[in-house]
Amino acid sequence: MKIDINSDMGEGFGVYQLCDDAALMGVVSSANIACGFHAGDPAIMTRMVRLAKAHGVGIGAHPGLPDRQGFGRKALPFSADEICQQVVYQLGALRAIAQAEETRVAHVSFHAAMGNMINQDEALAARVMQAIARIDPALIIFSQPGSLIERAAAAVGLPGLTLFLVDRAYDANGGLVPRGVAGSVIKEEQAVRARVRQFLQQGTVTTFEGEALPVRARSILIHSDTPGSVELARTVRSEIEANGDCVAPAAEVLAQ
Amino acid sequence: MKIDINSDMGEGFGVYQLCDDAALMGVVSSANIACGFHAGDPAIMTRMVRLAKAHGVGIGAHPGLPDRQGFGRKALPFSADEICQQVVYQLGALRAIAQAEETRVAHVSFHAAMGNMINQDEALAARVMQAIARIDPALIIFSQPGSLIERAAAAVGLPGLTLFLVDRAYDANGGLVPRGVAGSVIKEEQAVRARVRQFLQQGTVTTFEGEALPVRARSILIHSDTPGSVELARTVRSEIEANGDCVAPAAEVLAQ
Amino acid sequence: MKIDINSDMGEGFGVYQLCDDAALMGVVSSANIACGFHAGDPAIMTRMVRLAKAHGVGIGAHPGLPDRQGFGRKALPFSADEICQQVVYQLGALRAIAQAEETRVAHVSFHAAMGNMINQDEALAARVMQAIARIDPALIIFSQPGSLIERAAAAVGLPGLTLFLVDRAYDANGGLVPRGVAGSVIKEEQAVRARVRQFLQQGTVTTFEGEALPVRARSILIHSDTPGSVELARTVRSEIEANGDCVAPAAEVLAQ
Amino acid sequence: MKIDINSDMGEGFGVYQLCDDAALMGVVSSANIACGFHAGDPAIMTRMVRLAKAHGVGIGAHPGLPDRQGFGRKALPFSADEICQQVVYQLGALRAIAQAEETRVAHVSFHAAMGNMINQDEALAARVMQAIARIDPALIIFSQPGSLIERAAAAVGLPGLTLFLVDRAYDANGGLVPRGVAGSVIKEEQAVRARVRQFLQQGTVTTFEGEALPVRARSILIHSDTPGSVELARTVRSEIEANGDCVAPAAEVLAQ
Repeated sequence: MKIDINSDMGEGFGVYQLCDDAALMGVVSSANIACGFHAGDPAIMTRMVRLAKAHGVGIGAHPGLPDRQGFGRKALPFSADEICQQVVYQLGALRAIAQAEETRVAHVSFHAAMGNMINQDEALAARVMQAIARIDPALIIFSQPGSLIERAAAAVGLPGLTLFLVDRAYDANGGLVPRGVAGSVIKEEQAVRARVRQFLQQGTVTTFEGEALPVRARSILIHSDTPGSVELARTVRSEIEANGDCVAPAAEVLAQ
Repeated sequence: MKIDINSDMGEGFGVYQLCDDAALMGVVSSANIACGFHAGDPAIMTRMVRLAKAHGVGIGAHPGLPDRQGFGRKALPFSADEICQQVVYQLGALRAIAQAEETRVAHVSFHAAMGNMINQDEALAARVMQAIARIDPALIIFSQPGSLIERAAAAVGLPGLTLFLVDRAYDANGGLVPRGVAGSVIKEEQAVRARVRQFLQQGTVTTFEGEALPVRARSILIHSDTPGSVELARTVRSEIEANGDCVAPAAEVLAQ
Repeated sequence: MKIDINSDMGEGFGVYQLCDDAALMGVVSSANIACGFHAGDPAIMTRMVRLAKAHGVGIGAHPGLPDRQGFGRKALPFSADEICQQVVYQLGALRAIAQAEETRVAHVSFHAAMGNMINQDEALAARVMQAIARIDPALIIFSQPGSLIERAAAAVGLPGLTLFLVDRAYDANGGLVPRGVAGSVIKEEQAVRARVRQFLQQGTVTTFEGEALPVRARSILIHSDTPGSVELARTVRSEIEANGDCVAPAAEVLAQ
Repeated sequence: MKIDINSDMGEGFGVYQLCDDAALMGVVSSANIACGFHAGDPAIMTRMVRLAKAHGVGIGAHPGLPDRQGFGRKALPFSADEICQQVVYQLGALRAIAQAEETRVAHVSFHAAMGNMINQDEALAARVMQAIARIDPALIIFSQPGSLIERAAAAVGLPGLTLFLVDRAYDANGGLVPRGVAGSVIKEEQAVRARVRQFLQQGTVTTFEGEALPVRARSILIHSDTPGSVELARTVRSEIEANGDCVAPAAEVLAQ
């Protein structure tokens, strides 16, 4: 079985860098590249695209709200039309950078507050997906399984790929246990390996309450901005390979 | 004969507006739309694309250096790679906005300092044109006749359209008389009409020194940010039509 | 009696200008100068300070939320600490510019959403006023009569000056009739003159419902960004002078 | 003898951080705080001022050119008037933040390209120093010994403090050996300790060519953005104290 590992990349700005993008690019199979609004700039985007191309990593747009100071984490009072325009603008910018480097954008993964806003507004989600479909109907939309974004993408025929968060505890409803709660973030290598194994072999995760919960996911998300993200990604990758499965970009996962 | 009238559009930001874009869009045939670096933002770009589509006006990218405060008029110390990335990013952003509005970008016209920098650096011009050609080899490059940009575009097979500045005095070498010089800017309606007529009928302009100079141009540029730009554009258009010629977007001018 | 006329000034950015600041500076007696967050930049601020000094106009800080694209009109999710820091930063910047030009900042008038947020949060208002008092306890705080800002300023001993909006209809509670409502904006010269006269002679305004409402105000606010603002300011000034009163900056109004 | 240790602080932006400011603040005696143009924002500036106050560290303004993406390292084509306004704006902003925290700004240290531009233009330097003197004639100007900035500050009566770069090789003329050259950056603890000792005991540095060169300096600059900067600062501090000297802020060094 092919499975994807994805991570947010190129979330620096000028001299600032949030993680070791170059090292991480050698481990993941899909890169969600910041597009210049919450983070990133044309130079960083180009560097990311070149690295991804060199490593055979799938290139994705990671659009966010226009708020560098808040890193796109705050919900901002933009209209649905404005948010849709911001998605389109950023996606187009990365697509052209990919074209100039003789490669292409394969997927879209929304950042933080922008993702939350789209995920909570059916009309907005529909509008955004329609715009994306007009730009390229083959773009793969990353989402949480069962989310509004997943349904909105499917409704216009855009392919989707669902995510599993290997380092975060799930509750009985498949939601994430808030970061503040003790035990909500899984860091130990053995625990991470066990979760990857269970996910691959049984398609489940053991919830915070101790029950086995089915997980419908084709890509494992690694949070790039947590310390040790490169090692975490290596652990996940080696466990996948030890299990006899294969790490591959989103498009290959869907094509298998 | 078909001839184009083009103007820089959407060069506002947020509440700021530089000219009456909506009125001007009803007169010109090609709009060079600011792409969010020296001016413009996703909302303004979308409005411009919708207006252009509604009026049958050709849509062009008008990329500039990332300098809102200086309006892209200052040469800034960016590397050739960085400038090329800035062109690509902005062009891609507008292309996606056009696609989301079910239309397309037809041409590229560089803004102020970015244009000057490209026009003075052969390697940079070659690189920029190669990147544009990879994005869309049908994009029409606007330029001064005889310029480095014109040659660099032709070298990679990109179609070109050359400009005539109807409101600016030319010197004997075909250069523009600097704005500071008395008589360098032509404002009177009758003088403008006479220049349009001479350009259409004889293909020449009378230089500052009084000689008839051949003008190889297919589009008349109207500076949108000078007072009275809408009236100037109307004067030019009516004179073209009075002469029995036809105002048409760049692509139609080239196809005739 | 001395009365102040104040207006928001320097709300441009780079090449953009919202009103004819130079003309308006010759009519008003207090200038609320944008400080570089919602509008303005060091060059514009310096120009405004020089103009104000030359015309004997009182210099005020007009801080706003850090949102040029939204012109500071949107409520943004900043903490009380952050908003207080934004006020302090901008006030300090203008104070230094005034000092470098050998003059001083006399008052503070909050812009749009920042003003609304402070006006709706007692703890925030108290914190902001304490910070301002630490910077300069003689700074005059502009506010609507009866507002939370007025009370918070008084609580820390900061002098206050209350505003009358001559071009906006008041309701029975002294609130403003929303702009959307027909008749909410008063534009006719004779109507404006009559309102100024009534305010000066009887200290009242006739409400939208037709009752005379007492107005406790010492300064008339002219919205600089509405068309005809310079003429409106001239009308107000000439009516004040025709009435035998005197137009003077906030500090002189308070000192009389 | 009292000697100062200074470092650039608060050069992050939003979620980005360049160094461990909190740790470094426990070691240095003077903090050059970024003021929001090349780096920093009101929240970071406030945090830095609070940390400095808590540690008895001298607070300094570290103004830079308005260029976050380039981190203020590029010379940009601003006029002398504009650069002077940028210095004044940033200095004023930090002064107000300090006042709101019931402390004060003690010194000014110019950042990168802004410092170089001021250091190479006598008229600009004179103008900047005059403006600073109008804002607060007690502000201490940090500079390289013998520089134009040192002379311009002295000419208007501003106190000055000269710097010694303990981790950079000097040439025979007292200039810095360019970073590219092998041996230009001194990193070994023993070498750094030896340089500090020689500087304190003999007032000299051994140049790249091997000669003893007199060093007229009262403050040691630690580059905060190089890896290991906190350890380097601790090494320098412990060597100063081992030598029987005392680490103290700029104002105390000048007052001894």
